[in-house]
Amino acid sequence: MDIKHYQEELARFAGERDWDQFHTPKNLSMALAREASELLEIFQWLTGEQSCAIAENSGEAARAAEEIADVLIYLLRLADKLNIDIEAAVVRKMALNAQKYPVALAKGNAEKYNRRKPRT
Amino acid sequence: MDIKHYQEELARFAGERDWDQFHTPKNLSMALAREASELLEIFQWLTGEQSCAIAENSGEAARAAEEIADVLIYLLRLADKLNIDIEAAVVRKMALNAQKYPVALAKGNAEKYNRRKPRT
Amino acid sequence: MDIKHYQEELARFAGERDWDQFHTPKNLSMALAREASELLEIFQWLTGEQSCAIAENSGEAARAAEEIADVLIYLLRLADKLNIDIEAAVVRKMALNAQKYPVALAKGNAEKYNRRKPRT
Amino acid sequence: MDIKHYQEELARFAGERDWDQFHTPKNLSMALAREASELLEIFQWLTGEQSCAIAENSGEAARAAEEIADVLIYLLRLADKLNIDIEAAVVRKMALNAQKYPVALAKGNAEKYNRRKPRT
Repeated sequence: MDIKHYQEELARFAGERDWDQFHTPKNLSMALAREASELLEIFQWLTGEQSCAIAENSGEAARAAEEIADVLIYLLRLADKLNIDIEAAVVRKMALNAQKYPVALAKGNAEKYNRRKPRT
Repeated sequence: MDIKHYQEELARFAGERDWDQFHTPKNLSMALAREASELLEIFQWLTGEQSCAIAENSGEAARAAEEIADVLIYLLRLADKLNIDIEAAVVRKMALNAQKYPVALAKGNAEKYNRRKPRT
Repeated sequence: MDIKHYQEELARFAGERDWDQFHTPKNLSMALAREASELLEIFQWLTGEQSCAIAENSGEAARAAEEIADVLIYLLRLADKLNIDIEAAVVRKMALNAQKYPVALAKGNAEKYNRRKPRT
Repeated sequence: MDIKHYQEELARFAGERDWDQFHTPKNLSMALAREASELLEIFQWLTGEQSCAIAENSGEAARAAEEIADVLIYLLRLADKLNIDIEAAVVRKMALNAQKYPVALAKGNAEKYNRRKPRT
């Protein structure tokens, strides 16, 4: 996925509509959180298993795909406005996660690293 | 950005830690919304202008980059679990947005398409 | 619970700290969403049953109570800033919900009223 | 506001619809976060000043009141399911906030207490 290409398309789209005045990082963070919560709505009353089964339900999968796209669109736009290299940020964070969650401590255990009880 | 590559790395990371039991689409949607709200925390008391200035503040920009990475990591993982082609979803959504927000109606106007007042 | 009393206490607290400049409805909606997502963090990797068991775990219950308080504090503050009578709003919404979710249609069915499939 | 009364009404409403199966604390935290984000949608493209002016706009104020009610309804329900005394939690949290944000340090300064730079 050519991140830069989509960021340019989105910038052009906003520019044509005179929307840069609305697209501050602050406002984009609100729109992003809003779209992320649309995914909550899809899954909120389902069991974990039912949420997996959505992959086989073309209507619900299409709905989820649309919300995922909305989140990514605002994320690309926000990163662009903040001059953040989104792929480099992911690489850095994945390296950090490998340090915070070593297999020996994290196996079968989803506790946040800073809440993990010491093992003896 | 090679989406598939990162999805495979994330799947390997989760698999080694026996975390697939936790990574249902339902739970991932919660983690995603949680991380999106970390971005809200960065911007919540800032004005729009101050939020733009974060791009020049290396400490705050790094903090924002880390939260953006967290959101993207969970988004990649969720799309993977639902077999959603994230780039195709973005392309479809951008085409849909072009229809819902024609320049003539949307210029300088951030109203949601289904709340737009008719113009005469 | 004397809503007005707490709203006055919160207004006084903010006033003493010169925080009214930060407490616009926009900013308060961000802080509110942020605090709501702290509850997501508590529950995100738990099963539904495990989430119920938190009531018996004094540490986790206290953590949940603190986040619930944070949400309510921002909600009281936001309603105050918008001159919204929060109790009247709840009464109105509960009446509306009774109309949208009649027992005959909603029994055992958590679908949103506007997504409900017609029954024959 | 008689918190217990509303919690009993909501429990009755859910019971009649056989919705207790859906109302785990986990699921309620999702619904709560979802409703909180509806408030984000109202304010996301407004300036701080415009967000204040919503109090004078009866249509938008009614929309905000409905979303505030939705948040409170789920919050009451969640507290009930976790046996949390919501008023006592608010009292405790307000006392804690008074300690974390003493006027001398917090005046005109919205920084989170654990990010506050030392003053000399």
